[in-house]
Amino acid sequence: MAEKITLRETDYSQWYIDLVRSAKLADYSDVRGCMIIRPNGYAIWEKMQAALDAMFKATGHVNAYFPLFIPESFIKKEAEHIEGFAPECAVVTHGGGEQLAENLYVRPTSETIIWSSYKKWIQSYRDLPILINQWANVVRWEMRTRLFLRTTEFLWQEGHTAHATSTEAQEEVMRMINVYKTFAEEYMALPVIMGRKTESEKFAGAVETWCIEAMMQDKKALQAGTSHNLGQNFAKAFDCRFQSKEGALEYVWATSWGVSTRLIGALIMAHSDDRGLVLPPKLATRQVVIIPILKGDISAVIEKARSIAAELNQKGIAAFVDDSDQNSPGWKFAEYELQGIPVRLELGPRDIQSSTCIAARRDTGEKSKLQLDSSLADQINSLLESIQTNLFNRALSFREKHTLEVSSYSEFKANIDNGFLVAHWDGTDETEAKIKEETKATIRVMPADPEMVLRYGMDQPGTCIYSGKPSTRKVIFAKAY
Amino acid sequence: MAEKITLRETDYSQWYIDLVRSAKLADYSDVRGCMIIRPNGYAIWEKMQAALDAMFKATGHVNAYFPLFIPESFIKKEAEHIEGFAPECAVVTHGGGEQLAENLYVRPTSETIIWSSYKKWIQSYRDLPILINQWANVVRWEMRTRLFLRTTEFLWQEGHTAHATSTEAQEEVMRMINVYKTFAEEYMALPVIMGRKTESEKFAGAVETWCIEAMMQDKKALQAGTSHNLGQNFAKAFDCRFQSKEGALEYVWATSWGVSTRLIGALIMAHSDDRGLVLPPKLATRQVVIIPILKGDISAVIEKARSIAAELNQKGIAAFVDDSDQNSPGWKFAEYELQGIPVRLELGPRDIQSSTCIAARRDTGEKSKLQLDSSLADQINSLLESIQTNLFNRALSFREKHTLEVSSYSEFKANIDNGFLVAHWDGTDETEAKIKEETKATIRVMPADPEMVLRYGMDQPGTCIYSGKPSTRKVIFAKAY
Repeated sequence: MAEKITLRETDYSQWYIDLVRSAKLADYSDVRGCMIIRPNGYAIWEKMQAALDAMFKATGHVNAYFPLFIPESFIKKEAEHIEGFAPECAVVTHGGGEQLAENLYVRPTSETIIWSSYKKWIQSYRDLPILINQWANVVRWEMRTRLFLRTTEFLWQEGHTAHATSTEAQEEVMRMINVYKTFAEEYMALPVIMGRKTESEKFAGAVETWCIEAMMQDKKALQAGTSHNLGQNFAKAFDCRFQSKEGALEYVWATSWGVSTRLIGALIMAHSDDRGLVLPPKLATRQVVIIPILKGDISAVIEKARSIAAELNQKGIAAFVDDSDQNSPGWKFAEYELQGIPVRLELGPRDIQSSTCIAARRDTGEKSKLQLDSSLADQINSLLESIQTNLFNRALSFREKHTLEVSSYSEFKANIDNGFLVAHWDGTDETEAKIKEETKATIRVMPADPEMVLRYGMDQPGTCIYSGKPSTRKVIFAKAY
Repeated sequence: MAEKITLRETDYSQWYIDLVRSAKLADYSDVRGCMIIRPNGYAIWEKMQAALDAMFKATGHVNAYFPLFIPESFIKKEAEHIEGFAPECAVVTHGGGEQLAENLYVRPTSETIIWSSYKKWIQSYRDLPILINQWANVVRWEMRTRLFLRTTEFLWQEGHTAHATSTEAQEEVMRMINVYKTFAEEYMALPVIMGRKTESEKFAGAVETWCIEAMMQDKKALQAGTSHNLGQNFAKAFDCRFQSKEGALEYVWATSWGVSTRLIGALIMAHSDDRGLVLPPKLATRQVVIIPILKGDISAVIEKARSIAAELNQKGIAAFVDDSDQNSPGWKFAEYELQGIPVRLELGPRDIQSSTCIAARRDTGEKSKLQLDSSLADQINSLLESIQTNLFNRALSFREKHTLEVSSYSEFKANIDNGFLVAHWDGTDETEAKIKEETKATIRVMPADPEMVLRYGMDQPGTCIYSGKPSTRKVIFAKAY
């Protein structure tokens, strides 16, 4: 039987850890800061990978694989990059029983190792663009870790593209942040705010970082994906130039973009409840569990359950039967709620007689009666769609309810634990740093979603809530994961 | 234009390297011994992964992910394992700017880190079996490297299973080596000999290692996959016991099995030719290239080519058009032969008038005339099937032609560069070591394929070709990659 999960209102952090471990999504390993992604958790990642990979390919990208190790001298070629990443790297000093002539860094991200290759591949504008993505593990030494959200090793994808013009690079940056937004909203049922990061929050080595930010159930923000315009920074660091159509020798323009297994943490924190995981049907490897209620003629019920599962599978719905006799139906209900199976069908002898069954949806717990006829798959598909939509709408309502506009710093401080705060900011690093120091809140995003800009007048001038200086725009502040 | 590839008969090793680099499958990186798998090469790996992953899931396995790093103390828990792997490990000594209290080994294989988890997951027979697979990168410090075949870092899958009985574990070992054999033969069109490794060739820490061995075009052997019966070795090393149905406390039985990006090297070496890569259609991301022959009405030809590609795509055939005007048809023919596209369609204005086109198959170069009507997809599918079958049959004939039975050591030495040698062996490590020392040939496999056993009387007793002592069976010797 599953261990008891701490209630969210009692201790949200503990609820999260309890859920991740009870639902067997992940666990800490014996290696400091590294997690084990267990089969239930990895299945979610596989679903995410499949959807994202298809979207990357549909936008012209191909996959490749670059080395895990990065020579120390490479990491040091881009000044901001080394400053940002070197302190959190794992360093290989020995190999094959001997000390290495040059230390190797386990990749924290692959810009440097990839641009050292692009330099060799790019001579002319004909070699551009390069649109490559890599699925890989990366390592960043973390002091305080949390399963999925912040671990020393994690899995991700990193896109690295090379372009002939700044305009093309910027188009790519926007294309990919929009791919992420679409993925988050349509697959994860997770509403996100798309926009730009401030100078101090951008990627080490980028000219601009674009991001999608989501709100968790504890009203904190979680950065769910980033897309960087790297300008010519890495091309210059690796002396990567190309001959343009006009015959001039120019530095190549670059982007990079990534999402990671952190998204699994976001998924859990956005939708799940005190009974366990709640999964959007589009990311559920198992969408429907059929539980025979065994009274009287056991074999007929089991047979019917299996034939229903087979029929649903054939129609593209991932259904399975739990007909084990070790556990009671009640135990099974709780177990599959914990595991986040979107729909449960309860099937007993009477149901078979009346050609109906009870369907319970995981998101609301609501039960309905379904007809056991040729329309069953359609009935279940509409239930799954309804769950997918409801999860999104519920999360969106929650975020909207907890997004407040504030016009003074006292109002800001009084509300900083209540969600996203829309506020005027004078655009300086100093103000941003002061606010962070005093409240732990950071500027999550300078929103670019037209609807969001319009609703809050994000692009209207005003007065900075902290410094009282003129502000050219509003931004979103929040405490964040 | 592609660089010239060295001919196989001139220098087989150089041919291989030239091909891998010209076809942009992989390249050496700036990190010693590590390769970059370029998009053309990675596409093959993605096809392999998809096919294998489906076969693993169909046999009840699920995927998970364990840490990249293994504490030094874990590696040292299994005596043979440490002896086999420790000398070839990359070692992380620093993380987050500080020296680590305990060194971390970059995984060369994951038995130890996984069994330290299984110990926590397994209490009772009810927790068994565990059938987990992992797709991951591993690192083994190699002195002499060769793209795909032997690199410091490579990609692979490693299955790790836990069972209640020795019998179940052995069944799993055989199930998975047969999955590999099926994959090699049906997808890679690569005939393999399945059987057991000798004591000295088995995996460090295994009780028995089963393998599939293939012959390359230079008549050398290549180990294409292994499946290990680990007995209770790792369970004992990690004190992993379970309560049996009968209430006794017993050590868990284990298997592990893996294939790697080395298979891409095997694929190249088995089928490719002096013009470049030859890909079995089932592993080709792009199966058909349509090349418009542009004379007269260019736009009509291009339009027709595109509509053919769209129709084929819709019917599940991966076709694309190269209508670029930068390069001549002849250049394109050579380029796509280099890249191993299984079928080329040549389409000119006259073809359109006569509703036909020329199809050239990559494996034989043979050309045929296809009808441009509603049966085109069927015609191409049968061409693709014919290529797939021909590649397998060609490789099988080659192997059979170069598999010789020898009955004396002088005959052995005279023929050791001519392929696989079937010979009696006295079963001792000493004889095996002597033969290896004197000829560089190793015992590749003690075949278990019934057809192979029968044909060569593999299980018949006789006299060892080296020692003259009694032998209980014949084995296969060869030089190997």
